[in-house]
Amino acid sequence: MGSEFDADTSVETTVPGEYTAAVTDRWHALAGPNGGYLLAICLQALREEMPHPDPLVLSAYYLRPAQVGPAGLRTESIRSGRRTSTAQVAMVQEGRERMRALATFGDLGRAESRRLLLERPPALPPPEDCSDFARGAIQHVSIADRIDYRFPQMPGWVHGEPGGQQRMEFWMRLRDGREPDLLTLPLMVDAAPPVVLDFDVTESATVELTVQLRARPAPGWLACRVTTRAVLNGLHDEDFEIWDSTGTLVAQSHQLAVLP
Amino acid sequence: MGSEFDADTSVETTVPGEYTAAVTDRWHALAGPNGGYLLAICLQALREEMPHPDPLVLSAYYLRPAQVGPAGLRTESIRSGRRTSTAQVAMVQEGRERMRALATFGDLGRAESRRLLLERPPALPPPEDCSDFARGAIQHVSIADRIDYRFPQMPGWVHGEPGGQQRMEFWMRLRDGREPDLLTLPLMVDAAPPVVLDFDVTESATVELTVQLRARPAPGWLACRVTTRAVLNGLHDEDFEIWDSTGTLVAQSHQLAVLP
Repeated sequence: MGSEFDADTSVETTVPGEYTAAVTDRWHALAGPNGGYLLAICLQALREEMPHPDPLVLSAYYLRPAQVGPAGLRTESIRSGRRTSTAQVAMVQEGRERMRALATFGDLGRAESRRLLLERPPALPPPEDCSDFARGAIQHVSIADRIDYRFPQMPGWVHGEPGGQQRMEFWMRLRDGREPDLLTLPLMVDAAPPVVLDFDVTESATVELTVQLRARPAPGWLACRVTTRAVLNGLHDEDFEIWDSTGTLVAQSHQLAVLP
Repeated sequence: MGSEFDADTSVETTVPGEYTAAVTDRWHALAGPNGGYLLAICLQALREEMPHPDPLVLSAYYLRPAQVGPAGLRTESIRSGRRTSTAQVAMVQEGRERMRALATFGDLGRAESRRLLLERPPALPPPEDCSDFARGAIQHVSIADRIDYRFPQMPGWVHGEPGGQQRMEFWMRLRDGREPDLLTLPLMVDAAPPVVLDFDVTESATVELTVQLRARPAPGWLACRVTTRAVLNGLHDEDFEIWDSTGTLVAQSHQLAVLP
């Protein structure tokens, strides 16, 4: 049996540059389908178009909320070079564009001599010693039924007492045993509850999300760090870093989100 | 007399959604026109299209090196909503697309009650007590003739001794007295020498640059912090943060760049 992630992000092609997909209700955040999940669907269409194997960076602009149901995807190859290639994708539902993304692909399997990891992964106790966060705890947040979050310490807002922490560190993996790869990471970087919940904010909607994919992840748990630097003019940022089980920085993301 | 920045980023419109500009040789980094300068030109075209006054976030994908000379810009309005609007722009020279960008605009002048600055600006000595970096020091890097950089300590690579520092903190402003605003910040976030020079790297080319604009900056010097977290698989990241003279975080950027 395949994984839920692979089934729920699969695309079918009809004519060149056009794809269909089905947005399911299994990856809901507070306000409906999670933005990282939608980006993971877009990525499936993009990789069909690209001559290079690996997404290096993706930037998604969220235009309107997506709905559960069929979606169309239109891709456009912008440039295809020796070392990288770039394309665009739009997701459309009921005739209205829901999101648009740009992406550059390359090859993360190239032999490269320089390797500098200048930022340490979070120092976390083993996942077994952490709390399983939020399984079924928040109604309609079905993404928590698919992703296993392990927090060494629960953020204050979980107990109704926002503690004003600008940073969370924790483990993540898919519950069904599907190992991480470059396809799942764009989901993962948007899958955690927003840091601003610990500042008594109850909702947040992503305007833009950029994901940098730095290395093909090894199997196992992912160590995560998420940070917000400012809430200003009705918007907040959120930076996400993921290290794999070998301690390699495999993904970084940056988003700008709007408060209701 | 207007500022060099305003003159060198101005666009003229011919037909709706089409603009012309001139890329000058006055904003060169090591390998030609600076990516932030090119994005500032794109932004001039985008703002003509957008019903909202302020760019909130821009993501630029660099496809091919741009050249000094005329450039065409094509914009496409993607969505226009109550609170935000989103558009796309492509820069073309000699029939070849050089870069493409997505951007969302809004209004940073809205009255908002929440204001949380969770990250402190760098603790820098006054600009007068810092060294004026690189004026005319590096040939062909004409951007250093336009921007005044003030470093409390020069990075080691300047003296031919790379010191392996992953972070630089310094002041910046335009030399001709043009005050910062939301148009100049996308240039500023890409205008500093890359951090990786301090790791004995001699060249770096931006693949993707996303800029989040958080507030309209006050006049005066800009306090900057730039950080690289990993050099991996032939690529490096670079995060940039800018605070204005009142201590407000006004811009954050994130880029992925390729090593030669």
